[in-house]
Amino acid sequence: MSNFVQPLNPVVTQMAADKLLDFQLQVRDIPNLVRLTFGEPGFAVDERIKQALYAAVEGDRSHYAESQGELALRKAAVAYFNQHANLAYENEDNVIVTLGVTEAINVVFQTLLSAGDGILVPEPAYGPYFMSIDLARGKRVGVDTTADGFKLTPAAVEKALTQADVPVKAILMNYPNNPTGVTYTRDELQALAEVFEKHNIWVISDEIYSTLTYDYEHVSLAELLPRQTVMINGLSKSHAMTGYRIGFILGDKAVIDEMQKVHGAWDFAIPTFIQDAATVALTEVTEAPGEMRDAYRARRDRTVPQLLAAGFDVVNPAGAFYLFAKIPVDLGSDGDAFAMDLATNGGVAVIPGSGFAESAAAYIRISYAADDADLDEGVARLVKRVAELRAEGVRFD
Amino acid sequence: MSNFVQPLNPVVTQMAADKLLDFQLQVRDIPNLVRLTFGEPGFAVDERIKQALYAAVEGDRSHYAESQGELALRKAAVAYFNQHANLAYENEDNVIVTLGVTEAINVVFQTLLSAGDGILVPEPAYGPYFMSIDLARGKRVGVDTTADGFKLTPAAVEKALTQADVPVKAILMNYPNNPTGVTYTRDELQALAEVFEKHNIWVISDEIYSTLTYDYEHVSLAELLPRQTVMINGLSKSHAMTGYRIGFILGDKAVIDEMQKVHGAWDFAIPTFIQDAATVALTEVTEAPGEMRDAYRARRDRTVPQLLAAGFDVVNPAGAFYLFAKIPVDLGSDGDAFAMDLATNGGVAVIPGSGFAESAAAYIRISYAADDADLDEGVARLVKRVAELRAEGVRFD
Repeated sequence: MSNFVQPLNPVVTQMAADKLLDFQLQVRDIPNLVRLTFGEPGFAVDERIKQALYAAVEGDRSHYAESQGELALRKAAVAYFNQHANLAYENEDNVIVTLGVTEAINVVFQTLLSAGDGILVPEPAYGPYFMSIDLARGKRVGVDTTADGFKLTPAAVEKALTQADVPVKAILMNYPNNPTGVTYTRDELQALAEVFEKHNIWVISDEIYSTLTYDYEHVSLAELLPRQTVMINGLSKSHAMTGYRIGFILGDKAVIDEMQKVHGAWDFAIPTFIQDAATVALTEVTEAPGEMRDAYRARRDRTVPQLLAAGFDVVNPAGAFYLFAKIPVDLGSDGDAFAMDLATNGGVAVIPGSGFAESAAAYIRISYAADDADLDEGVARLVKRVAELRAEGVRFD
Repeated sequence: MSNFVQPLNPVVTQMAADKLLDFQLQVRDIPNLVRLTFGEPGFAVDERIKQALYAAVEGDRSHYAESQGELALRKAAVAYFNQHANLAYENEDNVIVTLGVTEAINVVFQTLLSAGDGILVPEPAYGPYFMSIDLARGKRVGVDTTADGFKLTPAAVEKALTQADVPVKAILMNYPNNPTGVTYTRDELQALAEVFEKHNIWVISDEIYSTLTYDYEHVSLAELLPRQTVMINGLSKSHAMTGYRIGFILGDKAVIDEMQKVHGAWDFAIPTFIQDAATVALTEVTEAPGEMRDAYRARRDRTVPQLLAAGFDVVNPAGAFYLFAKIPVDLGSDGDAFAMDLATNGGVAVIPGSGFAESAAAYIRISYAADDADLDEGVARLVKRVAELRAEGVRFD
């Protein structure tokens, strides 16, 4: 640090690294690697969405957008989520349009957490959340779900609240879950909601995978606890629009008004013509989410048995597009070393579980968002490498 | 606040309001208003930039971009600014691509300022900076330039540093300046740079208007103090690409690496296809900045005399596209009331000076970024309204 003109902010210099991105950078230059890493749909964006974007650019819809989001898009988002998730938001004042879910998460954390406030995070969890908590000067209070099949239970919430050594202001829910694929039934959510209500904590519910549920209907915590919940969603997964960077924050007007101050101050507004395209996605491209869900379900259904047969321990995911797999016990318990061997010697990249929780160091995350051909080739290489390691008697401990 | 589930972060609830935006919301519903408010170029985006965007979208360049910015754009940006501003950045590691200058400012403040650190801000200054300083938990140390023709002097910097009651870590420079249009000669900058170097403070130099200098060449502080300066720029003004939201942070690799942690954590990456379009803007649309500069200069040259004739006190702006005008003394000294009267009874909207500095409450900011026709009609209405007020003997005090 001594080389800097003046010392930098320790909140930044000491920020937790993004282990997901670090691993991908480590394996970036390996040739012919099949990548089952990023949670990035392989589908192309629907032609109607592209055409809407072209028309907007052509019509010079490239001046400053309304900071909170263009009116048409905010109206469309409220109508869409009210219908999709059985919600009762009143109007466009209940939503902010953000640069993807990543910005949404930060805006919510910055607004709800004061310096030193605790936030409950069921783990394993999407690693970049940890950086956003650091940036908000919050304190992460992890709740390990590994022993409960990766499901948060009311008892675990009660225990974490009792044991926390900081004042807990919020819980961060994410379901269908990245990285485990776990999601919740209405009854399970109802039981959790009762605990959240009793303790009167903010519920931050990242439901970006809400259209990707395979075995039962998605239920939003914003339906069960409307006043207490801030819901986060977007178009990256439902419409395969990752690079368009469209996220939404939905909540009571009073808290949305405060969050808009943060969004407005941070980046003012997101590109106008992308918002026009997003409006078309929500209002016209209504069959895409279901078609993608069916495709992902088929991938899940043919991949899980292969992993089980190879000796992995996998909770069958009810949603999202990840398989969170414990490496075969005869190959050891070090998922980091296993993943690095797999990339180096097996030709396939997956993410080590340690990026999502310390307790998940024996796991790897396999994304099945990739193209069918990539997925099948990647899984075949994975199975082959496991057989080779077994034959060689190699262990990772 | 008592209605919230848990109290919100006071950094947000107590954040300074954006007076520029507030005023525009107040006058939003007035019919037939000519708006000389936003600093938004009226020019359409060059067709080559649009075509590059269409091609990228068509080619499904809509997956996650590289978080720090696409390699081609970062290389283009370093080459462009090295040439444009006589800089010596080594390579793509010296730049981050952000969602406009607004995000750039926040990333820089969050990284350089620890909670409670002071930052010198020559005033009048672009109001939204103040929110960003709040969000970074910094302390604004204003340096009033009103008595010096809106130019920061070495003596004023020395005095502010001596009198500051917080440790000052940085100075925020913005030239050509919003709202005053003032910019600096090489000699003036050299004298300032000596003081900044002596006191070893970070120099944050927002040079978004660097292509819009009318009377002499733009000199970057990044040329004079390369290690100490973080330079901010973008394509909103040079290429009229406001709604594309392309900003850049340039600096030493070591500090850029830390800033990238904040950018990556905050919104991961900006849309891929927009970055492709921005690369074309920097490499192929090289004549646009000069053409726009000439058009703005012509607007300035025909507008300033009209304002002087009407009794306004105006420093002839050497850059940017704003006129910062003190209202005629016989009409009083309350720029807020004058601006509201002008919008309500005169049919033209300008921004009250109080949004930029308390000491500038007698001023208004007139943007000449609008179309020629709008500008001329707006100025005609302004001159007419002044005559009416004078005839009626109205004063604003």
